[in-house]
Amino acid sequence: MTHEIKVFAPATVANVGCGFDIFGLALETPGDEVIVRMTSTPGVKITSIVGDNGKLSLDPEKNTAAVSVINLLSFLNIKLGVEIQLIKKMPLGSGLGSSAASAAASVYAVNALLNHPLSPKDLIPFAMEAERVACGAAHADNVAPALLGGFVLIRSYDPLDVVQISIPIQIYVTILHPKIEIHTADAREILKPEVSLRQMIQQTGNASGLIAGLLQGNAELISRSLTDVVIEPLRSRLIPGFFEMKQAALNAGALGCSISGSGPSLFALSLSTSQAQHIGQEMVKACRLHNTECDVYISPISREGPKIL
Amino acid sequence: MTHEIKVFAPATVANVGCGFDIFGLALETPGDEVIVRMTSTPGVKITSIVGDNGKLSLDPEKNTAAVSVINLLSFLNIKLGVEIQLIKKMPLGSGLGSSAASAAASVYAVNALLNHPLSPKDLIPFAMEAERVACGAAHADNVAPALLGGFVLIRSYDPLDVVQISIPIQIYVTILHPKIEIHTADAREILKPEVSLRQMIQQTGNASGLIAGLLQGNAELISRSLTDVVIEPLRSRLIPGFFEMKQAALNAGALGCSISGSGPSLFALSLSTSQAQHIGQEMVKACRLHNTECDVYISPISREGPKIL
Repeated sequence: MTHEIKVFAPATVANVGCGFDIFGLALETPGDEVIVRMTSTPGVKITSIVGDNGKLSLDPEKNTAAVSVINLLSFLNIKLGVEIQLIKKMPLGSGLGSSAASAAASVYAVNALLNHPLSPKDLIPFAMEAERVACGAAHADNVAPALLGGFVLIRSYDPLDVVQISIPIQIYVTILHPKIEIHTADAREILKPEVSLRQMIQQTGNASGLIAGLLQGNAELISRSLTDVVIEPLRSRLIPGFFEMKQAALNAGALGCSISGSGPSLFALSLSTSQAQHIGQEMVKACRLHNTECDVYISPISREGPKIL
Repeated sequence: MTHEIKVFAPATVANVGCGFDIFGLALETPGDEVIVRMTSTPGVKITSIVGDNGKLSLDPEKNTAAVSVINLLSFLNIKLGVEIQLIKKMPLGSGLGSSAASAAASVYAVNALLNHPLSPKDLIPFAMEAERVACGAAHADNVAPALLGGFVLIRSYDPLDVVQISIPIQIYVTILHPKIEIHTADAREILKPEVSLRQMIQQTGNASGLIAGLLQGNAELISRSLTDVVIEPLRSRLIPGFFEMKQAALNAGALGCSISGSGPSLFALSLSTSQAQHIGQEMVKACRLHNTECDVYISPISREGPKIL
């Protein structure tokens, strides 16, 4: 048995517009890396963290990279020790699934060191429990795509039912990360507990249309379906200049543009790298009009989940 | 130009469980027939109706078979006359899209007599206007599948965006029609104007799952997705014995079972004729426990829309 392994897990875009809590997609980059070592002394330790500007806890009960592993070892009833070095290579609090990437990377690494007793899909619940520590709720819309790659539908949470949506065309993602802070509590409190029946009809129509468009490789249908009438109108208030940045993306040819997860990042989809880059440039211009610093990431939707490095 | 034509248009199942107002599917049988004749005297007339027990109006402003044609001729600015004989071969007020089948058959027939100036998809708005006369709202979830056949998604009503969902496997439909009357107004009033965010998440998840299951030909996913947490719990109260009939269908192997349109009919899906028949028999037994007379129809999901006879 190998005792040490290095694993990468990707950043992810949750919700993807019309799929609040049920859609997520994985990028190729950026993402997090972990170096995981098995030891004979039981217990899970975070031995070091780099790239987090000191923001993350070394306490294994509070760090998602450790929590997912604690849950996995408990499930498998394995009494070995695990030491985790966490190398953050993506921004925290950006709406790109930073906590999910760490949780996915480490649980994938330990499962690999144990010779893959579980499938990547089976690992999702352990990473979800880590999300509960990070954001108070066991969401799957970041950890599921982080572990499986590509585009996923979480059809149901109870019981958990994760469906991989294969896309016959290559879709590129432009991420604009405005460097502002959105508190998860604010992003949640701004939502309303009820939606109108009319909104539900529109949202089910668009969600169904997006799934059909992705499976059929129909870019026009994907574009028409990338409309969120429920969440975006509320959460966009927390992002200064949101509609200017979105309009800049659409003017530059994006298939659609909305908030990544609970923000503040925006995602925009397109059909080529060059278009994705052009979209990014135009979004940056719009962002700077609001005197907000921002970073841009360009990536295809990934075709695979975590990678052993 | 041929001056007379006979056309069949099929019964349809609207909503299909989780797709309130946005999903519909067409049966092969039953359906309605029209004999349509072009004349040189402008005006649209219903010359006879059979099979309706005298319930339908001969007034062209009040009969959907005429209203759809009036709208089409007005759009095309054609001053010819049209005489329509309507042959009802399916029950009225059953939740199987009776008014839509008549509207679709006649508008399809006139378009055919005019040498197909419009595509079947283009005909949908004219038949929708007829639905407004019949039930007070311009729904598309019966007329769209009646005109296109198969399974359709109405992604959006404004603008109208109808997406055909091709299904690589053959799916059979069992219809149980309990002979009770549900007033459309009651079926609408029993709905709540708002749904919880949680219900919306479940409904978008199931609607997305059903579309993925149909496109991928994944019967298990179709089955898991055929759950309506919003409409069925309310409208089922109007159908005595609904849950016993649904359970009988599921026990007999149905992939799923719910209310067809606004009821009172139930639909159940399965993968073979023999299973569809067995499901029908078991549903009838459950229905009769409530001293309700009922009819059963068995049909594959159609592969085409109206047929010239």
